[in-house]
Amino acid sequence: MSLSKNNIKLITSLQQKKYRQKHQLFVAEGVKVVNELLASSLEVEHLFSVDASFEPLKKCGVTLISENELKKISTLKSPNKVLGLFKIPKKKEINQDKFMVALDGINDPGNLGTIIRLCDWFGITELVCSKNTVDCYNQKVVQSTMGSLTRVNILYVDLEDFLTNSKLPVFTADMDGKNVYISSLPEKAVLVMGNEANGISPEIAQIVKHALTIPRFGDLQQTESLNVATATAILLSEFKRGLK
Amino acid sequence: MSLSKNNIKLITSLQQKKYRQKHQLFVAEGVKVVNELLASSLEVEHLFSVDASFEPLKKCGVTLISENELKKISTLKSPNKVLGLFKIPKKKEINQDKFMVALDGINDPGNLGTIIRLCDWFGITELVCSKNTVDCYNQKVVQSTMGSLTRVNILYVDLEDFLTNSKLPVFTADMDGKNVYISSLPEKAVLVMGNEANGISPEIAQIVKHALTIPRFGDLQQTESLNVATATAILLSEFKRGLK
Repeated sequence: MSLSKNNIKLITSLQQKKYRQKHQLFVAEGVKVVNELLASSLEVEHLFSVDASFEPLKKCGVTLISENELKKISTLKSPNKVLGLFKIPKKKEINQDKFMVALDGINDPGNLGTIIRLCDWFGITELVCSKNTVDCYNQKVVQSTMGSLTRVNILYVDLEDFLTNSKLPVFTADMDGKNVYISSLPEKAVLVMGNEANGISPEIAQIVKHALTIPRFGDLQQTESLNVATATAILLSEFKRGLK
Repeated sequence: MSLSKNNIKLITSLQQKKYRQKHQLFVAEGVKVVNELLASSLEVEHLFSVDASFEPLKKCGVTLISENELKKISTLKSPNKVLGLFKIPKKKEINQDKFMVALDGINDPGNLGTIIRLCDWFGITELVCSKNTVDCYNQKVVQSTMGSLTRVNILYVDLEDFLTNSKLPVFTADMDGKNVYISSLPEKAVLVMGNEANGISPEIAQIVKHALTIPRFGDLQQTESLNVATATAILLSEFKRGLK
């Protein structure tokens, strides 16, 4: 594989979800992220590197390219030595007997990336996403999750179906829920977090049995809410804190 | 005031900290953010609006402009009707007898914005920043904090001096600290959070007496840490949870 016009076209096309799905490939960039992914169970398709001494090159197909060529295929402001094409792994079934997080229409790649890192931190290996949640192989998600992406099992499902059939208690965050600080929380549950602007959708709201509130200490007149990623951080910490 | 070339030059210059400081002005955009700031104690210098029916226009100086003119002065991908010039408020002294957050070299405007919103949520009105922390009137910070910026008292100081003279116990997050879930935490303290890549600086580390760890539940071999804003969310929740 060389950096032909066709390859430039392939790599840049992978910025779009439909081409990632067609080719079953995604892009990761930079020494740290590529190294993390190479160390995981993911299969690498090909690497493009400006540096022949980059250690992992010995293990897989590689094309040495110039800094200028890297700029052509990179989406980073400061391209960092290496760009890898990785195979999207085959879907694994979600283990429905473990604590899991479910996302209903998260739009922002940064928020999804942060939530994947949080799952990894709290030992949550199962993440279920509604079909309209941003793709986890979106390059901004890949870059922001670092290696966490490879340690969390992420599945896109019909969330309404999935939750209807779940045997675990289903929780969400809501302004009118129970104070999370004094609620007794089960070890196994599904925590559903909703869209940045609109929260969880009406269909999902009907399924959720338990609503939790993170109490507000500031001015109660104000209308602002917590960002979805920081609310997820606090709720996961509450579910897990009794276990350490 | 009209949208003269000089005004376009002034407004775009305010994207840089040195011109914000020179003119003691900052920019906020969009109906929601501008409304929040107009409802606060901030003084507005001037508004530029594409919509003569925008309610607050009656209260202050305004220039009606076209969508194309708004594009010229906006930094948003989708400019939203109105752009306001606001006066940077006079510095207030930090109330040193309250729980406060201190930031040591936070670089990312999104992280600072999230932390300001968190302070607001948890009723923390005092935020101290090292001089090398990103400016809170940076437009990305203003846009992401919404009205929270007006409810949190933010002061840029020599952080080493400030912490040395503080009478409150000084805490930070550290991998080798005490498990935060089983630590007894005081009602009044300073929580210092460090730079995204390097953590707190060596000078500050010498002053900090109490290190807290958020226990990790996932694979202990992995090297990733929590993002500074999500770590701040969890720690503030721990300091405050006993009070509700």
